[in-house]
Amino acid sequence: MPRRRNAPSNLLGSHQRCWLWGRNVVVETLTARKWKPLEILLSDALSAAQRSVIEQLASADRIPLQVETNDRLTQLCKSAEHQGHLARMPPFPYDDAEKLLENRPAAPLYLALDGIQDPFNFGSMLRSAEVLGVDAVFLGETRQVAVTSHVARSSAGAVNHVRIARVADLADWMMRVKSLGIRTVGATEKASDPPDAYDFRQPTMIVLGNEGTGLTPTVLAACDARVGIPQTGCVNSLNAAVAAGILFYEAHRQRHPHATRHPL
Amino acid sequence: MPRRRNAPSNLLGSHQRCWLWGRNVVVETLTARKWKPLEILLSDALSAAQRSVIEQLASADRIPLQVETNDRLTQLCKSAEHQGHLARMPPFPYDDAEKLLENRPAAPLYLALDGIQDPFNFGSMLRSAEVLGVDAVFLGETRQVAVTSHVARSSAGAVNHVRIARVADLADWMMRVKSLGIRTVGATEKASDPPDAYDFRQPTMIVLGNEGTGLTPTVLAACDARVGIPQTGCVNSLNAAVAAGILFYEAHRQRHPHATRHPL
Repeated sequence: MPRRRNAPSNLLGSHQRCWLWGRNVVVETLTARKWKPLEILLSDALSAAQRSVIEQLASADRIPLQVETNDRLTQLCKSAEHQGHLARMPPFPYDDAEKLLENRPAAPLYLALDGIQDPFNFGSMLRSAEVLGVDAVFLGETRQVAVTSHVARSSAGAVNHVRIARVADLADWMMRVKSLGIRTVGATEKASDPPDAYDFRQPTMIVLGNEGTGLTPTVLAACDARVGIPQTGCVNSLNAAVAAGILFYEAHRQRHPHATRHPL
Repeated sequence: MPRRRNAPSNLLGSHQRCWLWGRNVVVETLTARKWKPLEILLSDALSAAQRSVIEQLASADRIPLQVETNDRLTQLCKSAEHQGHLARMPPFPYDDAEKLLENRPAAPLYLALDGIQDPFNFGSMLRSAEVLGVDAVFLGETRQVAVTSHVARSSAGAVNHVRIARVADLADWMMRVKSLGIRTVGATEKASDPPDAYDFRQPTMIVLGNEGTGLTPTVLAACDARVGIPQTGCVNSLNAAVAAGILFYEAHRQRHPHATRHPL
């Protein structure tokens, strides 16, 4: 389904989807060599030493590099936060979902996203996933934002390290994953079991749904277990990226029990 | 220190600090009756039924209400996301820190913030704090963003429910809190103990530092214990609001142990 795969997100203009800006994220992306820029633009306001770092990284991968004014950079990426560093990006190089399964660890911890719409939530989830040991992320095709430059920025560069694959139908994919002995656990506020009632040491795929409407019925039906973060108070709902971080933490906590030396 | 207390944040223009916009947050703020608007402006594009809801809430508190065009509302709050609802706000009504201590529960769970600078992180922390049972939040005066309309929006209305007080010197305040038998636990990436090594059932104040530089040395020195969320991978740091949510979750988990009926 090439057309759907490349469908523009309705949340971001195309100019923002193909330009990556900011010193850290451009350096990180060049260093990781996973998502290779088509072209690098540097500001003429940078020092020779600052430019040299990027020139070396770009020449190693034969990436064309140009020097432009600060104003031209701002005009291109439509943000003044470029810090003199701009990279024109091709579509994100997603991993192949089947190959990820073939090369899975003994007890994988996977994440499946069922319609995350906010690029900042998505980026933050990828960041937390990378930091807390999620082995791969599978994206459904329905309502799910793609990996864009906004996502890359809010992931703090995690898009360069965490494995991310797209699947055509998430519920079908869950059945495939389950056939390999990996359990699927859906996060839903309606679940009565808290996250620590689930044994995350098992081969597991955590499934998270849309910020507003949660998991779709077919995806929810494909979950082996359901957990919900206990919520008190009046607001009664956590931010989706915070909820995701809590689930990854709970999984990491169970998988890496600490030896308590003393009660703190 | 009235001047410092009212010092404008350098992150937000004054127009954004005094206008609260968006239907949910305006309704929530009027309903909670904690932070009373000075004036309500509604769009003439709203239906009579939509206006009536707000008119009743505003008249109960004798808040002046005007009807304006959509364009005028956009011009005032400098955002098109007002959904026809705008409230002009006085400074946020912080709680009195000493009174909060006087009326503390038997084993309080407090939060102290030492220089959170991003309004979205701050709002998200308040939202998680409210949802996961934090009894009160104490803000240091150094580098700490105030409760603004941006914070109110990203808190999903939690500013109307969670108790928030400012203190002149956070390290001094920690000594005061400790003198009452409440332990202070600082979150720092340098700590070797994970969050679940700490017994959060004790009367506890969680202390979180600036997004970039962490806890200041005097605040760190005033901590009885230090914990760090274990981090693997390359990115090597969680978003500050996600890290906060994880700590509140760990505290809530320990304070409300579930009865495992069956292994999920």
